[in-house]
Amino acid sequence: MKAREYRAAHFLWSLDDDGVATLTLNRPERKNPLTFQSYAEMRDLFRGLVHADDCKAVVVTGAGGNFSSGGDVHEIIGPLTEMRAPELLKFTRMTGDLVKAMRGCPQPVIAALDGICVGAGAIMAMASDLRIATPRTKTAFLFTRVGLAGCDMGACAILPRIIGQGRASELLFTGRNMTAEEGERWGFHNRLVEPEALLETARELARSLAKGPTFAHGMTKNQLNVEWDMSLDAAIESEAQAQAICMQTQDFRRAYEAFAAKREPVFEGN
Amino acid sequence: MKAREYRAAHFLWSLDDDGVATLTLNRPERKNPLTFQSYAEMRDLFRGLVHADDCKAVVVTGAGGNFSSGGDVHEIIGPLTEMRAPELLKFTRMTGDLVKAMRGCPQPVIAALDGICVGAGAIMAMASDLRIATPRTKTAFLFTRVGLAGCDMGACAILPRIIGQGRASELLFTGRNMTAEEGERWGFHNRLVEPEALLETARELARSLAKGPTFAHGMTKNQLNVEWDMSLDAAIESEAQAQAICMQTQDFRRAYEAFAAKREPVFEGN
Amino acid sequence: MKAREYRAAHFLWSLDDDGVATLTLNRPERKNPLTFQSYAEMRDLFRGLVHADDCKAVVVTGAGGNFSSGGDVHEIIGPLTEMRAPELLKFTRMTGDLVKAMRGCPQPVIAALDGICVGAGAIMAMASDLRIATPRTKTAFLFTRVGLAGCDMGACAILPRIIGQGRASELLFTGRNMTAEEGERWGFHNRLVEPEALLETARELARSLAKGPTFAHGMTKNQLNVEWDMSLDAAIESEAQAQAICMQTQDFRRAYEAFAAKREPVFEGN
Repeated sequence: MKAREYRAAHFLWSLDDDGVATLTLNRPERKNPLTFQSYAEMRDLFRGLVHADDCKAVVVTGAGGNFSSGGDVHEIIGPLTEMRAPELLKFTRMTGDLVKAMRGCPQPVIAALDGICVGAGAIMAMASDLRIATPRTKTAFLFTRVGLAGCDMGACAILPRIIGQGRASELLFTGRNMTAEEGERWGFHNRLVEPEALLETARELARSLAKGPTFAHGMTKNQLNVEWDMSLDAAIESEAQAQAICMQTQDFRRAYEAFAAKREPVFEGN
Repeated sequence: MKAREYRAAHFLWSLDDDGVATLTLNRPERKNPLTFQSYAEMRDLFRGLVHADDCKAVVVTGAGGNFSSGGDVHEIIGPLTEMRAPELLKFTRMTGDLVKAMRGCPQPVIAALDGICVGAGAIMAMASDLRIATPRTKTAFLFTRVGLAGCDMGACAILPRIIGQGRASELLFTGRNMTAEEGERWGFHNRLVEPEALLETARELARSLAKGPTFAHGMTKNQLNVEWDMSLDAAIESEAQAQAICMQTQDFRRAYEAFAAKREPVFEGN
Repeated sequence: MKAREYRAAHFLWSLDDDGVATLTLNRPERKNPLTFQSYAEMRDLFRGLVHADDCKAVVVTGAGGNFSSGGDVHEIIGPLTEMRAPELLKFTRMTGDLVKAMRGCPQPVIAALDGICVGAGAIMAMASDLRIATPRTKTAFLFTRVGLAGCDMGACAILPRIIGQGRASELLFTGRNMTAEEGERWGFHNRLVEPEALLETARELARSLAKGPTFAHGMTKNQLNVEWDMSLDAAIESEAQAQAICMQTQDFRRAYEAFAAKREPVFEGN
């Protein structure tokens, strides 16, 4: 698969010459809600990125000053109230598969978050590796407000590891907005920037990662995922093996030779 | 079991018409210490809450401007120094069972913490889902000061997930006080309010949760517990199943119908 | 083994009469880099501390205003680029064994961190129980800058538990410096002090721990390690057993008797 050739029907997708892809949720008049189709298409896209050698980092963002209003009330919630258990499980597994696919691709995913970032939108932000927001970003895991549990798409496992169990419990039980300032203070957002600088800041960060040792970045991401529930000793052994593999890459040699020659290394991701 | 009918001998217990129960440690002249009897009685109470449909949320607090001074020196520590291993294990298992029962009941537990909050009192705060404190709340895991280890009632597992491994290590190794300001900054306390507003703030939060989709809240709490040591993929699958169950509740339908009719949903917890 | 008798070739090692040992990385003209020999020697030292009854707490620090520049480019990275997989794994396992040994010894390890604290130096700081730094301490997990992955010596497992998954991801993917102020704010550093007060502050903290119930401290450290990937219920049972053991120590009785006599307890670590 070439990421460049991907044609999306339910969002915008572009890939620049630096290997930085941008996924833009693009239904700004409705604050970029998700639909059955966009879930499935994004799941397939992120799954395909495992094999997309031309894509080195991904920025996910929303058009029109908002990230996403989450699952659409009319297009998703309404139909769900008519379904029976097997169909419902098919849906919740599909949404969970989007998170698995975002975590499972080797590219670092950077969320560029402005305005409304709620429901499944907040989950996509949470499932990203890094998050950049603006002072007006409002993030809410608002499932409880539609009569559901906070345990949606991995939130009870992932959110506590980002912001701590107590703060995650508050957000998941109450569904309240987390302000941008809280998000930065609690470690959810890595940085806040002004709205007009948001996309370029995220892309610049993505470009700097794309210029790095991308094979090694993929290993970092894999280990961040798989060590989640390992014992301390097992995690250390797993990293010994993973890093020994990275030490056999040309990028490691390139870095050493550049250092010896007192110049910047040029990594090629292999 | 009806929570309303519960008669406590070692603390106060009340349940209001909104389904909000208040457990008040009530020996203010001694700063509300715990005794063998109060541990056992609270363990039984929280275990019983699994079946108490009339109780939707619990506030735990202390009388007289303090939460709790922890296990009583004369009534608990003295006798323990005379016991042999099997009896000691019986005691430490009983105290651990109180934490298991607080985590195991489906109701969100909100700790309202003023003044002294130490030893087993700090543990009860830690085992709650949410914590509201005042500027004068002092929290200490002071087991080391009585010659014991910091690993009491789950503290080495739970505290690091709330405030991080480094800060938890300091509190558990040194037994020092965590100030209220530190507690808020580190994510232990969800909010600080003035002492005179403490109980009403906690109850108001409890009432808002009690008015929510309480079946779903119980699922959120269960998932926060059981995903603790799951792999990322297993946690996501577990949430897919849990949320599919919640999507079959009437509360989910009620929320959708209220949204369509542009009114507030009235949840019934089923 | 007596910790007092340990003679180190690649760093300084001293043990004072209070049972506080100080390990000083001591090649200040190169900012205290690590070499194959110093890794191996520190691994053996920390492994031996399991049996060193005369050592109650350890301070690790660096000479000359820096903690450590990490693995030496000429002495470590150069040779590694010439090795094949089995030799590389032997090296990464040795470095991982240093972290396992630092976590595996019963003594609390306090890192006193000034200036440069990068690469394997940052890992040694991370593997310590407590960290004290100065306003000029710069900490970087810079493996990515030499073409490697962030998963080095357990970083993908340990760092997220100290500072949260989002902040850890940023540091591990970018290799950027964490400032001292960020480190304190994020829970990596327990405290910041001026450089001239650093070593004495760390030693004073170490002395206060050495005067505490050191058998119980070792149990606290063990439980902080082993509960990492336990279920909530298993962790609580494990602590019930661990604390029941501590309740059979003389230190527990000493604390009770001192309390009854209204004097300070004198602990002996048994």
